[in-house]
Amino acid sequence: MKTVAIRNIERPDIHLLDGLAELGVSTTHEAQGRYGLLKPYMRPIFSGARIAGSAVTVLAHPGDNSMLHVAIELCQDGDVLIVACTGNSSDGFFGDLLATSAMARGVRGLIIDAGVRDIRELREIDFPVWSRAVHAQGTVKETLGAVNVPVVCAGQQIAPGDAIIADDDGVCVVARALAPEVLRAATVRKTNEERKRERLAAGELTLDIYDMRPRLESQGLVYLDSLDDYDEHENI
Amino acid sequence: MKTVAIRNIERPDIHLLDGLAELGVSTTHEAQGRYGLLKPYMRPIFSGARIAGSAVTVLAHPGDNSMLHVAIELCQDGDVLIVACTGNSSDGFFGDLLATSAMARGVRGLIIDAGVRDIRELREIDFPVWSRAVHAQGTVKETLGAVNVPVVCAGQQIAPGDAIIADDDGVCVVARALAPEVLRAATVRKTNEERKRERLAAGELTLDIYDMRPRLESQGLVYLDSLDDYDEHENI
Amino acid sequence: MKTVAIRNIERPDIHLLDGLAELGVSTTHEAQGRYGLLKPYMRPIFSGARIAGSAVTVLAHPGDNSMLHVAIELCQDGDVLIVACTGNSSDGFFGDLLATSAMARGVRGLIIDAGVRDIRELREIDFPVWSRAVHAQGTVKETLGAVNVPVVCAGQQIAPGDAIIADDDGVCVVARALAPEVLRAATVRKTNEERKRERLAAGELTLDIYDMRPRLESQGLVYLDSLDDYDEHENI
Amino acid sequence: MKTVAIRNIERPDIHLLDGLAELGVSTTHEAQGRYGLLKPYMRPIFSGARIAGSAVTVLAHPGDNSMLHVAIELCQDGDVLIVACTGNSSDGFFGDLLATSAMARGVRGLIIDAGVRDIRELREIDFPVWSRAVHAQGTVKETLGAVNVPVVCAGQQIAPGDAIIADDDGVCVVARALAPEVLRAATVRKTNEERKRERLAAGELTLDIYDMRPRLESQGLVYLDSLDDYDEHENI
Amino acid sequence: MKTVAIRNIERPDIHLLDGLAELGVSTTHEAQGRYGLLKPYMRPIFSGARIAGSAVTVLAHPGDNSMLHVAIELCQDGDVLIVACTGNSSDGFFGDLLATSAMARGVRGLIIDAGVRDIRELREIDFPVWSRAVHAQGTVKETLGAVNVPVVCAGQQIAPGDAIIADDDGVCVVARALAPEVLRAATVRKTNEERKRERLAAGELTLDIYDMRPRLESQGLVYLDSLDDYDEHENI
Amino acid sequence: MKTVAIRNIERPDIHLLDGLAELGVSTTHEAQGRYGLLKPYMRPIFSGARIAGSAVTVLAHPGDNSMLHVAIELCQDGDVLIVACTGNSSDGFFGDLLATSAMARGVRGLIIDAGVRDIRELREIDFPVWSRAVHAQGTVKETLGAVNVPVVCAGQQIAPGDAIIADDDGVCVVARALAPEVLRAATVRKTNEERKRERLAAGELTLDIYDMRPRLESQGLVYLDSLDDYDEHENI
Repeated sequence: MKTVAIRNIERPDIHLLDGLAELGVSTTHEAQGRYGLLKPYMRPIFSGARIAGSAVTVLAHPGDNSMLHVAIELCQDGDVLIVACTGNSSDGFFGDLLATSAMARGVRGLIIDAGVRDIRELREIDFPVWSRAVHAQGTVKETLGAVNVPVVCAGQQIAPGDAIIADDDGVCVVARALAPEVLRAATVRKTNEERKRERLAAGELTLDIYDMRPRLESQGLVYLDSLDDYDEHENI
Repeated sequence: MKTVAIRNIERPDIHLLDGLAELGVSTTHEAQGRYGLLKPYMRPIFSGARIAGSAVTVLAHPGDNSMLHVAIELCQDGDVLIVACTGNSSDGFFGDLLATSAMARGVRGLIIDAGVRDIRELREIDFPVWSRAVHAQGTVKETLGAVNVPVVCAGQQIAPGDAIIADDDGVCVVARALAPEVLRAATVRKTNEERKRERLAAGELTLDIYDMRPRLESQGLVYLDSLDDYDEHENI
Repeated sequence: MKTVAIRNIERPDIHLLDGLAELGVSTTHEAQGRYGLLKPYMRPIFSGARIAGSAVTVLAHPGDNSMLHVAIELCQDGDVLIVACTGNSSDGFFGDLLATSAMARGVRGLIIDAGVRDIRELREIDFPVWSRAVHAQGTVKETLGAVNVPVVCAGQQIAPGDAIIADDDGVCVVARALAPEVLRAATVRKTNEERKRERLAAGELTLDIYDMRPRLESQGLVYLDSLDDYDEHENI
Repeated sequence: MKTVAIRNIERPDIHLLDGLAELGVSTTHEAQGRYGLLKPYMRPIFSGARIAGSAVTVLAHPGDNSMLHVAIELCQDGDVLIVACTGNSSDGFFGDLLATSAMARGVRGLIIDAGVRDIRELREIDFPVWSRAVHAQGTVKETLGAVNVPVVCAGQQIAPGDAIIADDDGVCVVARALAPEVLRAATVRKTNEERKRERLAAGELTLDIYDMRPRLESQGLVYLDSLDDYDEHENI
Repeated sequence: MKTVAIRNIERPDIHLLDGLAELGVSTTHEAQGRYGLLKPYMRPIFSGARIAGSAVTVLAHPGDNSMLHVAIELCQDGDVLIVACTGNSSDGFFGDLLATSAMARGVRGLIIDAGVRDIRELREIDFPVWSRAVHAQGTVKETLGAVNVPVVCAGQQIAPGDAIIADDDGVCVVARALAPEVLRAATVRKTNEERKRERLAAGELTLDIYDMRPRLESQGLVYLDSLDDYDEHENI
Repeated sequence: MKTVAIRNIERPDIHLLDGLAELGVSTTHEAQGRYGLLKPYMRPIFSGARIAGSAVTVLAHPGDNSMLHVAIELCQDGDVLIVACTGNSSDGFFGDLLATSAMARGVRGLIIDAGVRDIRELREIDFPVWSRAVHAQGTVKETLGAVNVPVVCAGQQIAPGDAIIADDDGVCVVARALAPEVLRAATVRKTNEERKRERLAAGELTLDIYDMRPRLESQGLVYLDSLDDYDEHENI
């Protein structure tokens, strides 16, 4: 079961992807209703990268990278490789040779719920990776999985052709059908944030900008002059 | 209970804080008798920062950053925000908007036993953070906590107005009353260390500088010429 | 038992070590049959270092760095310090003073299954460390261990005089007797990889370079045109 | 977004569920092609329980159990509560009062990617729970989520009405549509296993029962008489 | 610094402790405003125990149990030993010999932020322990700490003489001065819960008992008839 | 490399093994100089078992249990299976079928640095297992490893034919050659402990039995009458 590779998938428009890359993970995630983040153990192997791409998904057996080889052939310009594993693994599934091959096909980066290696070389060729581990441990090519089927990667359901955004804050998935609307909402949010940033830099407080004071008071927040008052106040 | 914000706290003299920042975490921690370190899972979001400040403490509900908004209004020049959580949380309580607001009030950094986001922007505006996680997951503003009450943050008791030192080695707290004495002791220690560093660089050994040889011998240390001798020596 | 320090150990030729350093961890590990990696929780305190050296081994009690002082005297040019612990510890066993002393004796780096401190200073003097933790917590000098006996460090057996390679991918040990042969095999491998890298950069696929297609087909891999076909295919 | 509760869901036939409960997690998981397991950090709060039920899914905010209250009203005989969380949480979302209410509606157990409490009482009333944590920390009722929407719980996608099997080996999900076929395949497997168990108990070997010897030989397995022969054999 | 043992501490009345033991951790924790829980990694070595006692606190060096020997002499009937560690440790600080000695002095149990051993024997003599680890690794007696000073144990500040409650749900501390009031509040809570349990067992819902429906509606909860309606509803 | 199975190994006398089983892990570990413990994450799947046996070692690829099938044929009465993994794995390598086969050959238990399944059945047939995980995830039979070569399992070097002791405290290895002497030393230790237990039960203190008071005093331990005195004493 599941030993398949799907050749053709629908992808988001590449301009949508470029737009999402500029907005970044935190803004996109907020704009689609705080949805779509992968678990925070997924960390970039070097900082500063911010990408978006169309998901080519891989379901791999622990310690076996066969399907990554299969997947790269099916990649095209603007894709991001998503690797989920049928069991926990921190082995190094991917290194600079596969990265060289992926870059030759226009792949923008790798998101892998396992390990990678050749970190120094990946940094030198500027191929960004988000992974759960860095580990030199090699993998075999014995047990097949699947390419371009829906997977759960680091706690998040991802379908082939979903939009993936990744930066120093983590990794976020946006369903392909929702990508235009999320981009619109995120752009609005970004603009609003820039205005707020100016007001905050000038000394205004979020308590006033968000009009939080009445709500805090109704929820029972009490201001005391000093900690001495608090000790008296401490009762059940 | 505990839904309070304390307006006025006593703070250490700002010259004390500047002195502690220069000495750093490891020296300060040693100088006050190896006391005051937060758990080592608290890591800086970017390396190279070394700060000291006066603690403004926040006790927050998991996934709820209401009290951070309340706390920033109560901050002043030279403060460091300390955020403890009533339950484990890795959500992103704090990002570049709150950082902009905190910087406008003179806050020197954030120590948070939870997650942060907007890492790239925080690095760009050079606002240092020590946290247990980086995570884009947004928080709500529904459940109140407290500001400027004593908290346990990453395993260490911290009172408002305590001196906080943070650098690449971690985070250390010094009780406000002890800060002058700790600064004095740490300065002496630093001077001694510089002398030792010169002797070590010139080839002297710590075995001699600390006069360790007699103690090691009395504790039973045996020097053998080769591993062959050791195998015979291996008995119970 | 085991409170010994072995003065004389056999070391690999320093040219072998320099050769292994150039090849790095992942290539060396593959060249010796995917053997010898330490657990992936061992991470460098700063990125970019790539070293090889001859192991001087230390078996330490948790929270006690006595034997590190003993070990440094027994080090010489080209050595790497290996510290194993009789129990789990994340304390800071090693800082800039010991690093200064180690550098004065020609030590190339430290591999420690515990914590280190003075990260900023170690980066400034460019002394590379691979550790399980960064922690300012100081250690005592009360309980002895051993120097230059075989140890298990981060899951791997290491004998004094074994060759140690360390870089951003982790840490690998090569038995002294095998070092010449591993260097030869790794050099061959590196050359082959460079040729492959050129072909991959030019657009060839690993599926063809490794001739993977017939094996994948015999293992049952099925290519489908679209995900719609897959849903029909999904049966047990 | 997503603040909804779906009243009506389709459920598997209760006889299917009873059949799956008898077969258990490991057999069911194998029978559907090694698919459907939740992450192994999900552990039973007491051992020996083996249940199957129809999923009523809950998506909760960290530290907030509002939606569990909403979900229980929508439960019926044979259901299992599935709780996923929008962020990591180990708080105690569920205790003996909610368990009493759930049992009154025929709920067979709880699978929660967070914490539970009142362990002693849950054991006394024999209400089985699989969770990531046990923690007395109470939750609030401030932030809404969803009931009976598809969720990712402990790394696995679960839809309302999917069949859930749980025992000491963990938790497995079977898509509702596949449940009859998986039950058939698992029953066949169980029968085969019983025959094998008898042969193995009588001294036969899996090497022979599965006819593994030719494959092992072709894969290069070499039998040596003693470890002395191996040491010679150890080359690259 | 801190190498002291305090002989005389004030303790809560033993009838208060017996009352708290009966109420258990979750109820007590709620009754004092959801405060006082130790981290959930503290787990009982066997299930079913429920104790309360007066804290005798120990601050120990990692891997060194000297101060436990000192502490036992200072214990009396109704005490609970609390062991905090100046660094992370999972070593086995405590086994059946120390347990025999502690029981002879009336100690009711041990709470230790490190490891224990002799689990089988501790279960046989029914001496309950809550710990972060089980590990046979022995400790030394070389480095002193303190007895009966305030400590932070598993994330919670504990003073000597505080009331400690521990059961299968974890461990909770109640400040000595607050113990009478917390017992009163917890008793009221327990009585209320028993009434609610009867109503829930009879089929009433928490939605009605807590009158949650109006609040849920005002917070925007929408009931849909089926998942088909939800898919339409899914927008940003 | 390493794809070998060694047929003949030397084993400890079975009476030695029975003697060590009676003494248990903690006593044996102390008697051989606090050496030989596996990491504490190795936990029994059910409590109460206490075994000793001769190691039959397995080196397995992550997620692949081929070599376990090979190993069982090479087992005989009194053996314990030791499974190490070339990479981290929590998959379920072993269940009730393999256990039935192993029991038929006289195997006393399994120590596996990976996962197991069929927990309920293993408990019913009373086959004890110490593992790092429980997980139903099945394994494949594609990639070979080795049987009866030296391995590092859970941080400890184990050779085929070494004596393995396992109980609720964890797992300990004793080198075959040392087993007679360790048994003698452990028996003496056990007898001494029984005498001490009686004295402690009668109210004597370890401070006196071990004559700890003079040492503690010389190390600087100060007894204070009350915590008030301590606050004055708190200086650097």
